[in-house]
Amino acid sequence: MVMTSQDFNEWSPQGPVTELSVEHCWNLLKATNIGRLGLSVNNQPEIFPVNYIADGSSVVFRTARGTKLRELLTNESVVFEVDEQLENGAWSVTLKGTAEVLGPEIPDPAYGDETLPQWVPTAEYLYVRITPRDIRGRQFEHQLRLIIPES
Amino acid sequence: MVMTSQDFNEWSPQGPVTELSVEHCWNLLKATNIGRLGLSVNNQPEIFPVNYIADGSSVVFRTARGTKLRELLTNESVVFEVDEQLENGAWSVTLKGTAEVLGPEIPDPAYGDETLPQWVPTAEYLYVRITPRDIRGRQFEHQLRLIIPES
Repeated sequence: MVMTSQDFNEWSPQGPVTELSVEHCWNLLKATNIGRLGLSVNNQPEIFPVNYIADGSSVVFRTARGTKLRELLTNESVVFEVDEQLENGAWSVTLKGTAEVLGPEIPDPAYGDETLPQWVPTAEYLYVRITPRDIRGRQFEHQLRLIIPES
Repeated sequence: MVMTSQDFNEWSPQGPVTELSVEHCWNLLKATNIGRLGLSVNNQPEIFPVNYIADGSSVVFRTARGTKLRELLTNESVVFEVDEQLENGAWSVTLKGTAEVLGPEIPDPAYGDETLPQWVPTAEYLYVRITPRDIRGRQFEHQLRLIIPES
């Protein structure tokens, strides 16, 4: 695959950027289930892709017992990012907050009226909840730009 | 959208996980052009989605002059993650290294025989190169699991 400037035009913030409401962000978070967990471990950044669910006030993911969890336990300040490409742009939601390891039991939803996911608990997984203190969403629109090089 | 355990099965590392060769990782990096840049800023994690190109030995992205760049300049140790869902699984490539702000000029490719992207330089963008010291790729396969709850 040969990349050209067109590839960059596909999702650079070159067009209008719209800040999204908190409610809009949660609706987007609910609409997909793969995100990226960002940690700072001894001031070194780490990113892990995770499956998650969002219940409208927190994000829950599960993790096999392993390295990722061990690092989380000593680095509870996390960032969580979800994005999606659309036909005419893209959106990205970033959530900053604290991570709490809940253990192997399926957690209750933060809101009682949300649908509880039908997870089957197994000993190999631990559930982790991210409670956000900050949530930010942006929508990027594509924009065709004609740039005349200087002669 | 109601999420069920099926959502989680779609991309949890429950099936076989295959470690990918470095060459395979670069081929995957070349095949897409949206990744997530992870930074540690004052020991707080940050994630930014970016457009990038990979030339086989480094990753180059461009950024508008702004916050992201300012943080990069004081945090040259970065992580960069790209993933993609496949019909029967997913892959994720994570690259750790240093970021170097190149300036507003279109950078030369690290390898002369790679195709140079046809970017048009503009004053509003700065180019940043990530030179990896470590690259890791994994492929996750879906696996249907039948779990009988204890009665």
